[in-house]
Amino acid sequence: MTVQIERPQAGDRERFRTCNYYDGTGHIDTDPARGRISVESHLRVRSDVQLAWQVFDPECSALADIYSSLGRCTAVIDEEVHRLHGQRITAYFAGHGIALHVMTCRAREADKTFGMVQRIAAFLGSLEVNRSEPVLVVGGGVLTDTAGLACSLLHRRTPYVMVATSLVAAIDAGPSPRTCVNVGTHKNFLGTYHPPVLTLVDRSLFATLAEPDFRHGLAEVLKMAIVDDFELFDLLDSHGGDLVAARLARPGSVDDAIVFRTLRSYLRHEGPNLFEVFQDRPHAYGHTWSPGFELAAGLRHGHAVSVEIAFSATLAALLGWLTSAERDRILDVCQKLGLAIHHPAITDVDMLVRAQQAMLAKRGGGGLWAPLPRGIGGCGYVPDVSLSLLRSAIGAHSALCETRSGCDGQDMYTR
Amino acid sequence: MTVQIERPQAGDRERFRTCNYYDGTGHIDTDPARGRISVESHLRVRSDVQLAWQVFDPECSALADIYSSLGRCTAVIDEEVHRLHGQRITAYFAGHGIALHVMTCRAREADKTFGMVQRIAAFLGSLEVNRSEPVLVVGGGVLTDTAGLACSLLHRRTPYVMVATSLVAAIDAGPSPRTCVNVGTHKNFLGTYHPPVLTLVDRSLFATLAEPDFRHGLAEVLKMAIVDDFELFDLLDSHGGDLVAARLARPGSVDDAIVFRTLRSYLRHEGPNLFEVFQDRPHAYGHTWSPGFELAAGLRHGHAVSVEIAFSATLAALLGWLTSAERDRILDVCQKLGLAIHHPAITDVDMLVRAQQAMLAKRGGGGLWAPLPRGIGGCGYVPDVSLSLLRSAIGAHSALCETRSGCDGQDMYTR
Ligand SMILES: NC(=O)c1ccc[n+]([C@@H]2O[C@H](COP(=O)([O-])OP(=O)(O)OC[C@H]3O[C@@H](n4cnc5c(N)ncnc54)[C@H](O)[C@@H]3O)[C@@H](O)[C@H]2O)c1
Ligand SMILES: NC(=O)c1ccc[n+]([C@@H]2O[C@H](COP(=O)([O-])OP(=O)(O)OC[C@H]3O[C@@H](n4cnc5c(N)ncnc54)[C@H](O)[C@@H]3O)[C@@H](O)[C@H]2O)c1
Repeated sequence: MTVQIERPQAGDRERFRTCNYYDGTGHIDTDPARGRISVESHLRVRSDVQLAWQVFDPECSALADIYSSLGRCTAVIDEEVHRLHGQRITAYFAGHGIALHVMTCRAREADKTFGMVQRIAAFLGSLEVNRSEPVLVVGGGVLTDTAGLACSLLHRRTPYVMVATSLVAAIDAGPSPRTCVNVGTHKNFLGTYHPPVLTLVDRSLFATLAEPDFRHGLAEVLKMAIVDDFELFDLLDSHGGDLVAARLARPGSVDDAIVFRTLRSYLRHEGPNLFEVFQDRPHAYGHTWSPGFELAAGLRHGHAVSVEIAFSATLAALLGWLTSAERDRILDVCQKLGLAIHHPAITDVDMLVRAQQAMLAKRGGGGLWAPLPRGIGGCGYVPDVSLSLLRSAIGAHSALCETRSGCDGQDMYTR
Repeated sequence: MTVQIERPQAGDRERFRTCNYYDGTGHIDTDPARGRISVESHLRVRSDVQLAWQVFDPECSALADIYSSLGRCTAVIDEEVHRLHGQRITAYFAGHGIALHVMTCRAREADKTFGMVQRIAAFLGSLEVNRSEPVLVVGGGVLTDTAGLACSLLHRRTPYVMVATSLVAAIDAGPSPRTCVNVGTHKNFLGTYHPPVLTLVDRSLFATLAEPDFRHGLAEVLKMAIVDDFELFDLLDSHGGDLVAARLARPGSVDDAIVFRTLRSYLRHEGPNLFEVFQDRPHAYGHTWSPGFELAAGLRHGHAVSVEIAFSATLAALLGWLTSAERDRILDVCQKLGLAIHHPAITDVDMLVRAQQAMLAKRGGGGLWAPLPRGIGGCGYVPDVSLSLLRSAIGAHSALCETRSGCDGQDMYTR
C-alpha cells in the first residue's frame, strides 16, 4: 500500500534527500511590482582523499565499507589496469559478496573524447545506476577525466569513488574537481567541476606502471614542490631518478612523504576553491601555455607541463622572482627526473600568444594570472605577459638550454 | 611591463575573481596520522528572472545594459526565431553599438542531441568567449536545454542570458537550472545544473509562436496551477481556449497574472533547491512517467506531460487525495486547453514500470516521490506506486476517458 505524505515540514525533509553526498540551500526574493524574481542557491560538495595500501587485498575494508550496503558495485576500469589487476579486483568483490558490474575502457590520451564519455554514460544507464550510488572508477588521469564527466552528466550529478592507479591520478587528476575531454587538438576543451566523493590513493598500484607513464607524473609533483613546498623540492632533488625506478611504490619510506606532501600542497589550494571562483591557483603552474602545444606536439602531458615549468622558471628569473641559481636548480631537478625542459613548440611565439589568449578566456578575462615561482616554494601570479617579455623569455630559455645536454625528456612523446 | 603580485592577501583577492556571477568558499581538514584530507567546498549561484516587454525594441535597455560594457554579444538563436525576429535583433545591437556574433540553430525536439551541444560549444570556442562573458541564448526550451549545456561545459561554467521566446522557455525551461540532451529515446538522459544568470521573459514574443508550439506550453502552466496555485487554476478554467488564440501575448491583461503566478509558483520550489538536493518538487508533476513514453510515442512535450497530469489525477483520486469532482475538473481544464488526457502509452503497464524504475534511479533511489495533487492547489509525494495500484489507475483512467470525447490533444504529435 502507498504511504501518503503531505508537503514536507522542516523535520521530515531528510526523507526526500536525493543523495547523502551533496547538500544545498537557497532562497528567492519576489518583487511583483518590478516583475522580478531573484534566486540564490548554494551547493555543498564534500570530497575526501584517503591514503590506502593494497585496496584490492581482501583485508582492506575501504571499498567493502562503501559497496557492501549497496549490494553491488558498478565499475569503470582502465583496460590495462584490468588486464594486470582484474583477477584481484574480481576476487575482492566476490569475497565480500558484492555483485560487480565492470566496463573496461582503453584510456590513453587519444581516448579522452566525448565518444568515450557517451559510451561510459550508456553503460551506467543500462545498469540503472542511481543518483546516490557511487560509481567506482579505477584508472589513471584519462579515465578520471572522462568517467568523471560521464558521472557528472548522468542524472546531472552522480557520485563516484576514484581508485587512482597512476601517479597523475593519485596526486592531481584523481581528487581534482575538473572533468574534461579534448576536442581535436584543444586540450580539455569541455568539462565540468565534479570531484569524486572519495579518492583512494594506493601507491602499491604504481608498481605496474610502465616507466614513461610513471615518469611524466613526476612533473605534477615537481610543480607543487616548486610553487608551494620547498622541502618537497629538496626531497625530489636528493632522490631524483631513484624515484622513477621505485615508482614511489615502496611500503613506508620517503615515498609516503612525497605523495602526502604533494596532495597536501595541492589540496590546500584546490580544496577551498573547488569551483575555481578565484584564479590564484598555484597548481596551475605549468598549465598556462602547455595546453596550447601538448596535443599538437604529441607530448605526454607531464612533459608538456615540464617544458612549461622550465620555460617559466626562466621567465620568473627575468622578472627577478628567482635567482639564476634557483632557476638552474629547477632545471637540474627536471633533468634528474628525465623530464623535458625544452621543445621547439616553446619557441613559437605566435602559438604561445594564441595559447595565452585561450587561457585568458578560460580564466575569465580578468587577467592571465600565470602562476610563477617566487623563490622556490613560493608563488606569484602574472596578470599579463607582453609579447616582448615572451620573446625575451624564449631567447633566454633557448640560450640556457643550449648550454645543457639532454633537454629532451625520456619517452616524452605519446607516439 | 608586468605588474608583479605576491600571493594574495585577504584584501586583494577580488582581482583574481573568475566571474562576477558565481561565488564560493571552502576549507580542508588534514589528518596526517590517518593519511586523510577532507575537502568541503561551496558554490553560490544567482539567477534572476525579469519580466520584460519587447526586449528588442531599441528603447528597452535590458540587453544593452549587459552587453554595452562588454562591447560585443555572442548569441545562439533559434533558426525560426531568427527568421522572424532577426532583423530587429540585428538592429537592436547595431543601434547600441554592440558587435553581434550569431549562430542560428534549428532547435526542435529531434535536435536536442550531443551533436548540437558540440556544435554550439565549437562556435563559442571559435570566438574565444570568456568565462565571465554571458552568452546570449534566444529561443525555446530545446535551445535553452542544449545551449545551456554547451555553456555549462565551456570552461566548465560559462554564464548565459536567456531570452525566452516560447511559453515553455518563459515559465519553465528558461529559468530552469536543468540543461539536457536526449539520447536515443531516453528523454533528457544527460545534462547538468546550470541556470542562466538572467532570464528575460518577454510575452510579446509568443505572438509569433505556431499554435501547437504555444498550446503544449500550457501544460507546464497547468501543472503549477494544479499542485501549487488554486487561483491560477481558476484563471485557466475561466479563460480556457481564449488563452491559446491570444498566446498570452496581450499587453497587460490577465496574461500578466498568469505568467507571473506560474513563475512564482515554479521558482518558490525550484529556487531554494536549484541543485535538486531534495525530491519534494511539485514542478515534477507530470514528469514521473511521461519521460518513459514522450519520445517513443512521438508526443509533443506538453501533451506527454498532460497525459500524465490527467492519468495521475485519476491516481490521486484513487488515493483519496482528490475528490472525483476535483479530478473531473482537472480533466475538463486539460480538454478546454486542447491538451491530451489519454494516449495508448499510458495503458502499457510494463512501460510505466520501466519508466518508474528509471525515474527512481534519477531521483536517487530513496523513493519515487511522484508529485500528485492533494486537493487542487496542493501537492503530496508518493514514494512508491505498486503494480496493483498502477493497474487500477490504468483501468480507472481508461474507463473515465471512454465517457469523454476528444481525449486526444490538438496537434499532439511532433510529426
Ligand atoms: N583533471 C585534472 O585536474 C587533471 C590533472 C592532471 C592531469 N590530468 C590529465 O591526466 C591525464 C594523464 O594521466 P595519466 O598519467 O594517469 O595517464 P593515463 O590515464 O593515460 O594512463 C597512462 C597509461 O597508464 C596505464 N595505467 C594506469 N594505471 C596503471 C597501473 N597501475 N599499472 C599499469 N598501467 C597503468 C593506462 O592504461 C595508460 O595506458 C592527462 O590527460 C591529463 O590532462 C587531469
Ligand atoms: N530544462 C527544463 O527544466 C525544461 C522544462 C520544461 C521543458 N523543457 C524542454 O523544453 C522543450 C520544449 O520547449 P518549447 O516548447 O520551447 O519547444 P521548442 O524549443 O522545440 O520550440 C518549439 C518551436 O517553436 C519555435 N519558436 C520558438 N520561439 C518562437 C517564437 N517566438 N516565434 C515563433 N516560433 C518560435 C521553435 O523554432 C520550434 O520550432 C522540450 O524539449 C522539453 O523537454 C525543459
